[in-house]
Amino acid sequence: MEELKKGNGVPLYYQLKTILRGKIESGEWEPGEQIQSEPEMSASFQVSRATIRQAIAGLVDEGLLIREQGRGTFVARPKLEQGLLGFYSFTGDMLKRGLRPTSRIVSVTVTAATRSVGKRLLIAQGTRVVALTRLRLADDEPLMLETSYLPSSAFPRLEDCDFSAKPLYEIMAERYGTMPVRAKEAFEPVLVDEFEGSMLGVRPGSPGLLLERLTYARDDVPVEYCRGIVRGDRCRYYVELVVESKANQE
Amino acid sequence: MEELKKGNGVPLYYQLKTILRGKIESGEWEPGEQIQSEPEMSASFQVSRATIRQAIAGLVDEGLLIREQGRGTFVARPKLEQGLLGFYSFTGDMLKRGLRPTSRIVSVTVTAATRSVGKRLLIAQGTRVVALTRLRLADDEPLMLETSYLPSSAFPRLEDCDFSAKPLYEIMAERYGTMPVRAKEAFEPVLVDEFEGSMLGVRPGSPGLLLERLTYARDDVPVEYCRGIVRGDRCRYYVELVVESKANQE
Repeated sequence: MEELKKGNGVPLYYQLKTILRGKIESGEWEPGEQIQSEPEMSASFQVSRATIRQAIAGLVDEGLLIREQGRGTFVARPKLEQGLLGFYSFTGDMLKRGLRPTSRIVSVTVTAATRSVGKRLLIAQGTRVVALTRLRLADDEPLMLETSYLPSSAFPRLEDCDFSAKPLYEIMAERYGTMPVRAKEAFEPVLVDEFEGSMLGVRPGSPGLLLERLTYARDDVPVEYCRGIVRGDRCRYYVELVVESKANQE
Repeated sequence: MEELKKGNGVPLYYQLKTILRGKIESGEWEPGEQIQSEPEMSASFQVSRATIRQAIAGLVDEGLLIREQGRGTFVARPKLEQGLLGFYSFTGDMLKRGLRPTSRIVSVTVTAATRSVGKRLLIAQGTRVVALTRLRLADDEPLMLETSYLPSSAFPRLEDCDFSAKPLYEIMAERYGTMPVRAKEAFEPVLVDEFEGSMLGVRPGSPGLLLERLTYARDDVPVEYCRGIVRGDRCRYYVELVVESKANQE
């Protein structure tokens, strides 16, 4: 929609948001660039300043624009695009794009598996598991807060390892001879809560992606169950799909 | 974490949220079931009512619990789980799970491609495209609001078709002999805005998944560019990953 159309069922602010988003995504507006003022935009799009304000506020919420008090509104850095296959390997994925991955350990505890964790790891409720909560950063920017659960019996004294020195999967492989070979991931959009926001450096109520991963070693043994929250303002995922042959439905 | 642990870096309300989420996801608490009252929970978990309230409010936000004024708090119906390969075919996917898919047409316009839409469809900015905005429902419940852009030259008079009677891909195939064979999808978590909320029947500020799809016909010709918002409180996606051989990083 190049021009805004009145009365076609889609509100003007929403049409405008789509146009402005396009300018950012196509690179017509570059990262760091200051955008036009409200009165300028109001004149060039022939809509009220309230409409402009509503569209801009939405793009600020999406993380595409950044408002700086007293300075103006600027185009944000592009989000980190991640292929879905890169999901499971934070370290590898960040290295590939030239970022320095680090982890901050929030807590390591040995605890009794809840029914839910037990069900996933195929162990009885109450069985001992190691719960490892980490903040994952790229170039010192926090991106993800995640908790991994691993059965203690398969990984004795795992809780004593130095997780800041080595990636978890490397410890699993080198110390316990266990390699994840397959993973099932589920994700859904959620709102970042107070604790997550304080760790990730975003406001509570910001958009986040809840990731759940179940990792299997050879012989289909589940070895790790992980839940994480990814910052929505900095991450974006993509996947390529090939349509099955009988694909005449939509 | 079966029991709550003080001073381990993870706040009590957050630990509690994890435990309660587990009870819902494992089926220990069933859909439609009323959960314990705040005082009861406060007694059984040995934490303050403020902590209980914070945990419950978070699960309401996530769409796992539903609060009914004056009646209490109940376990929500499970979200619709969708395999990532099911992404592109709303109709097919809903039929497979025994739900009745319908579409409500919000607007159909012929318009000039923005630079961003043109870039995706490999056509010049200003070229005519059909923009089709639809609300997609399953068993009359709105799940997704999406806008498809298709080049007019490849689909002449597409805007006159009756999209409520037939899925778009069926029209593309039958009337124009064009079948989507491949798609690239990107997604990121966002907040639902006013217009989206009014269409989807959720509050503005609720979690939503922004989906972007570029569909290709044979010979790698892009034929449809689509942007949609999915309700986060009702949908959840999963994907199976096989780890590449050199996978000792995490």
